[in-house]
Formats: sequence, structure tokens, C-alpha cells
Amino acid sequence: MNQNDKSSAALSDVTRDSVSPAVIKRLPRYFRYLRELLRNDILRISSGELSKLMHVTASQIRQDLNCFGGFGQQGYGYNVKYLYGKISEILGVNRNYNAIIIGAGNLGSALASSPIFEKRGVKLVALFDVNPNVIGSSISGYTVLPMEELDQYCAEHTVDIAVLTTPKEVVRETAEHIASLGVKGLWNFASTEIDLSHQGVVVQNVHMGDSLMTLCYELTQNGDTRF
Amino acid sequence: MNQNDKSSAALSDVTRDSVSPAVIKRLPRYFRYLRELLRNDILRISSGELSKLMHVTASQIRQDLNCFGGFGQQGYGYNVKYLYGKISEILGVNRNYNAIIIGAGNLGSALASSPIFEKRGVKLVALFDVNPNVIGSSISGYTVLPMEELDQYCAEHTVDIAVLTTPKEVVRETAEHIASLGVKGLWNFASTEIDLSHQGVVVQNVHMGDSLMTLCYELTQNGDTRF
Repeated sequence: MNQNDKSSAALSDVTRDSVSPAVIKRLPRYFRYLRELLRNDILRISSGELSKLMHVTASQIRQDLNCFGGFGQQGYGYNVKYLYGKISEILGVNRNYNAIIIGAGNLGSALASSPIFEKRGVKLVALFDVNPNVIGSSISGYTVLPMEELDQYCAEHTVDIAVLTTPKEVVRETAEHIASLGVKGLWNFASTEIDLSHQGVVVQNVHMGDSLMTLCYELTQNGDTRF
Repeated sequence: MNQNDKSSAALSDVTRDSVSPAVIKRLPRYFRYLRELLRNDILRISSGELSKLMHVTASQIRQDLNCFGGFGQQGYGYNVKYLYGKISEILGVNRNYNAIIIGAGNLGSALASSPIFEKRGVKLVALFDVNPNVIGSSISGYTVLPMEELDQYCAEHTVDIAVLTTPKEVVRETAEHIASLGVKGLWNFASTEIDLSHQGVVVQNVHMGDSLMTLCYELTQNGDTRF
């Protein structure tokens, strides 16, 4: 069994079930860096070089990535394309998930106009809103649909992910309704924590304010001379 | 020395320097939950109750929070107001930091219209853009200023935080320019990682796409029957 065979064997063992949650959490960052390397036609990189680039220790990188295979002989470095492909596969990139956005305000529009979905192989298929002034308008080529049409839309189309940018006050109710329509993934921007795991729905609650707080903390730590 | 004295002594020891980065990272979430408790007039809570609410183990909570003090007698629970105050203080909330937003597009507008700054005691003071169609328009009561006025603005006002919602292509250059104006904190939404620590500038790089990837991962794990 040569090195490559060993990598493949290890990979099929680790795929899906046995990658630790801590490693999974770090994979999106590797995904971004590997994509950037590929874009710059860098096809091999050592853990040392990746370490410098990403500001993490080489031993952390080896610990995180070695189970995915894709490394050749000692000192030769990682096969960037192979590793990128494997990490994409583990993360569920390019599985052609369909997403809808609920709430076509500023944040909904910002998300619809950004390459955030496309970059991860997710297809944005529709936007919904309750505001008569917004319904029927066009955002990044999507005509905003009225919320009254949501049930029918979900019955007629495959919707895997609903992106929630509604006001906080209605998000829980909206989330439960969407879950009842069979949507299995919620990406929640309404700065409240939703848990629908008992209904078999996965939720990512985004708290942008948390990183503002971390920034404030770091500012106070960083030789704050204002006080 | 009674329990309270001990808490205070422990607190002055831990304030700022000796709270581990892992705990610091979790504090914004405690901040949110404690704020919610206060809003509902809940002034005491046991680690067991907080554990249920936050879906973390009671032992994790004790480990994270006991160093801040604010707990009374065994079994009596945490003093929510005290703990909230201490965590706010450690995180640098209510230090009256001033923030500007660079890029008054959809995301910049969404941030300016949200209570995200105010909730953390940060004051949004101005928005800047390069787009002539946007300059001079009003967003949430702020008149969008032209980027040409940025240098003068920063010379005449205290600006602690610049929120970067510019296109990815110009963000690095923009960040370096802003750092040269003496702004010490950057909150970067341009989905590229900026490191200006060598210039004494702290940066929080927000990668919203990472949580979309985690969602995709969880969807594939969660009995994905589409494939």
C-alpha cells in the first residue's frame, strides 16, 4: 500500500462521521485559503507555508488536515486541489442546495447581491417579503415574492435553506412555519437564538454583534489610551 | 473574608489580563443571555437554569463565570445584574467608542439601521462612500459623506472603529489608509482577512460565509435524503 492508498483509506474512514466538531468548525477557513491558493495557481503547499499564511501553528494544521489525505511524500506538501475538493465534499459544498431569503430589506438585499451563496455551491432561488413596497421589485434579478406565496412555493420547489432576515419579533414564528413546510436548514440573522433540532431542522444563528463585542474587548486590551 | 469579598478579590485579579481567550470568546453569548434575563426582570439564576437556557453544561458555565464573582451563597445562583455589568466591563461595552461605516451600500445601510452598535454602547457617527449616487443621501438619519472627507473627519473627530463594507478588491488598501489616520479598530465585512497587528490595529474579520458552510455541513449530516 503506497502513501496515496493509505490517504484514501484514511479518508473514507474519516468522511462525515469521525471528523471532530472542533476541526469541522475550522474547515471553512481552510476552504477559503485553499480556494485563494488555487486561484493563484499554487498547487502544492507545505504545512509550514500554510502555517505562515494562516497564522496558525504547523502542528495544528497537520493535526487538522492529515486525516483528509492529499499529502504526498514527507516535505513535499499538501496537494491543494485534492485537499480543497475533499474539504468541499465534507462541508457539503456543491450539493446544489437551494436557498430562499425571507426579508428583502437591506440585509436580505446585501446577501442576494453578494457571491456568498454561489461561492459555496448554494443556489439562491427566491426572496420573500411582507412589505407591499418591496414585493414585486427586483433585487439582483430576483422578483421579490409576497409571503402569502411561500407555502405554495415550498410545495412546488425544493427548498433546502431559508435565510431569515426578518425582524427579531417575528423570527421564531416564521422559523417554525418554514420548518413545517419541510425546509431543513435555517440561516438566522435575526439576532435571536433558534433551536429546532427536535424537528430535525438545523439552524445556524448568526450573531454579528458578537464580533463587534470581541473587537471592543480587543480595543480595550490594546493599550487603550482614551480612558 | 466572606464569599462576596472573595469574589471581589478574584475579580480584580482576573479583570482584563487573565481571562483566557477561550472564555473571552464565549462572553458575548453570556452577555446576550444575561441582557435578555434582565429585560425579563430575572435577577438571580442558577448555573443549572442558565445551562438549560443556553444549552451548555452547568459545569462549563461555572468554569466560565465563577471567576467574575457575582455569585452568592451555594445554591442561590448568580446575581444577573452584577454579572452582566462585569462582563460588559470586561468586553469594553459602554466605553463610548465611536464608529464610522465605510461603504454605504446594502450591508452598510443594514448595519446603520440596526441596533447593533447602540446595544453594545458603540456610537455610529458617520458613513462614507465613493458612489456619487449615494453621497449626500440620508441613511438612518446620517448623511453619507464622500470618501475625500475621511481624512479631515478623522483629524477632527475621535474615531475608534471603522466598519469596512467595501468591495473585497479595495478593502486592504482602504484598511491601511484608515489605520494611517489613527483608527485603532477595524470591523471587516469584505470577506478577506486583514492583519494590521504590526501597526497596533485590532481587526475583526467577519466571514458570514463560514456559517453558511457549517449549515451546509450540518444539512449533509442530518439525514440528507436528497442524494
